Amino acid sequence: MVDPANTVGLQVNPTPLLKDELDIVIPTIRNLDFLEMWRPFLQPYHLIIVQDGDPTKKIHVPEGYDYELYNRNDINRILGPKASCISFKDSACRCFGYMVSKKKYIFTIDDDCFVAKDPSGKAVNALEQHIKNLLCPSTPLFFNTLYDPYREGADFVRGYPFSLREGVTTAVSHGLWLNIPDYDAPTQLVKPKERNTRYVDAVMTIPKGTLFPMCGMNLAFDRDLIGPAMFFGLMGDGQPIGRYDGMWAGWCIKVICDHLGLGVKTGLPYIYHSKASNPFVNLKKEYKGIFWQEEIIPFFQNAKLSKEATTVQQCYIELSKMVKEKLSSLDPYFDKLADAMVTWIEAWDELNPPAAAAANGKA
Amino acid sequence: MVDPANTVGLQVNPTPLLKDELDIVIPTIRNLDFLEMWRPFLQPYHLIIVQDGDPTKKIHVPEGYDYELYNRNDINRILGPKASCISFKDSACRCFGYMVSKKKYIFTIDDDCFVAKDPSGKAVNALEQHIKNLLCPSTPLFFNTLYDPYREGADFVRGYPFSLREGVTTAVSHGLWLNIPDYDAPTQLVKPKERNTRYVDAVMTIPKGTLFPMCGMNLAFDRDLIGPAMFFGLMGDGQPIGRYDGMWAGWCIKVICDHLGLGVKTGLPYIYHSKASNPFVNLKKEYKGIFWQEEIIPFFQNAKLSKEATTVQQCYIELSKMVKEKLSSLDPYFDKLADAMVTWIEAWDELNPPAAAAANGKA
Repeated sequence: MVDPANTVGLQVNPTPLLKDELDIVIPTIRNLDFLEMWRPFLQPYHLIIVQDGDPTKKIHVPEGYDYELYNRNDINRILGPKASCISFKDSACRCFGYMVSKKKYIFTIDDDCFVAKDPSGKAVNALEQHIKNLLCPSTPLFFNTLYDPYREGADFVRGYPFSLREGVTTAVSHGLWLNIPDYDAPTQLVKPKERNTRYVDAVMTIPKGTLFPMCGMNLAFDRDLIGPAMFFGLMGDGQPIGRYDGMWAGWCIKVICDHLGLGVKTGLPYIYHSKASNPFVNLKKEYKGIFWQEEIIPFFQNAKLSKEATTVQQCYIELSKMVKEKLSSLDPYFDKLADAMVTWIEAWDELNPPAAAAANGKA
Repeated sequence: MVDPANTVGLQVNPTPLLKDELDIVIPTIRNLDFLEMWRPFLQPYHLIIVQDGDPTKKIHVPEGYDYELYNRNDINRILGPKASCISFKDSACRCFGYMVSKKKYIFTIDDDCFVAKDPSGKAVNALEQHIKNLLCPSTPLFFNTLYDPYREGADFVRGYPFSLREGVTTAVSHGLWLNIPDYDAPTQLVKPKERNTRYVDAVMTIPKGTLFPMCGMNLAFDRDLIGPAMFFGLMGDGQPIGRYDGMWAGWCIKVICDHLGLGVKTGLPYIYHSKASNPFVNLKKEYKGIFWQEEIIPFFQNAKLSKEATTVQQCYIELSKMVKEKLSSLDPYFDKLADAMVTWIEAWDELNPPAAAAANGKA
């Protein structure tokens, strides 16, 4: 069924970029009314909805959207015992959607994220910007002071080595948030009223060797290039930690992208993040992460993958061994997490047999 | 003599930041009429003018500015045989001004740079922004996705290690350019009409381990912390290369700042760069640099200073030895440059005896 809003949307974007090569993954526990505002930009795409929490609850999806929906029962049925690697009662469950997708690209967004406006008042088509970011190279080996050198009206500045101007293939595009910034619980508690109103008109490559805090709220990536490393960890129900799903994935993907010569970008596009989560609840979920990260980050900063690791899966398995060896002393949780990393890869390869993945890569 | 414009300027900024702790260094071959536009922002500060080219030419400085001026004869008289390390007929000569200054901070600007406007139409006080950048810490050890975490309305995002939130002391603030971008000759030739119109409202730290192309057109630094490494090389008259002065200094200071745990920022403030230099002349000056940089940059990326190098001077002397050892095979020029690096440090220490420098540091 095509409704008037949809028609308008399709007129604005007569040929949506990568329409048949991209899935939108949304983790949720509620009705997806937020998609009404996104209709002009997102309706042409296929949605993969990962329903968290009570599987008997009925999630309403606005009419006109094409989607598949998985609840906990579906995840358990599809993965069997390997479902243990998919988190429950935490937005980390979204990574199940990455696994079942058959597309080359993923855009994932939270259900409290709305369309942002740029300083001229124009609605930001976040997905279109993510796609541009992914289709255009990254420059992790040398810093360009005028930011994205491939953008219209910009270029490499004087002193930028010519041999590096082709850049490297981009694997990840990390978008930002206006209104409610992605702060941890202590910062939320200290600055309850802080809102992000600064629209920084830039996309930049995160340099090789530099880690960053990745947030899964507004994120896109090339599934063929980095998908198997986009595991959002063990969070939420039955785990000693929550809200570190994007961080965990961000540390892993950055180390692997650096090793494989792939690029990670951050900056545009912005979404409008509407709802601050409860800082007291967040503190309970985060507090172990807040001290663990003091050891986890140096661990990832020093993680060196071997020359033999040439696929994402091989890199990820190597990382899982290092996690087991180096982080288990921090807490038994990391022993379990290292096992889950292996389970995740096994489940990924089961749902994405190498032949099919290769064919997809060629498409 | 106080003129009306000055009075207005002083009313706008009743107490100019660091008025007695900062010198403005300007290399020039012409009258400094461009300072008229800067009066509200720069007139309270002391200028060090380094006159390049014909020393008999009289340079006119707008009334009301407090300045000292050095021409080639002055440089030769003050430095004697060590004057050989100061370039002639190239803006690299500006670094003589860094050496004779007795202040803690330096702001250097080219005479074809005018006051830029921000998107709201407000004139940008470039110096004030540089001072803010220098007085506020840098964060080279981990990337903050919301850019400068110390800026009003911003903070560290979720997942940023708390142990790194104090940041490190900032040594260098690299500003950008609206209108004529800082392109090399080949890019100028290919895109003669390209103008930079994008105002990116951000200041960011260049991560540890990442090099960048530094431009001396709009630059500020803490002379006590990094001054002895701000040698702009041997350029111009009698040298096989020109226009690589800022690049050379940028590679050196970044390696040394990384080693000493100091921060380097880039981004705001913008100046309005009025005049594209001649791309054919530039090509002649740059062409050796364009292929040399393909070897120089990996050299600096791999340069490791020893634990024993704990002062900027010690670091710089170590670098000079590495340049001699590793880059002389590229061209005999680097042998000469390595010697000039040593001469520069000797001249610096002669004009800035350690006791005086220490006292200045304490002030």
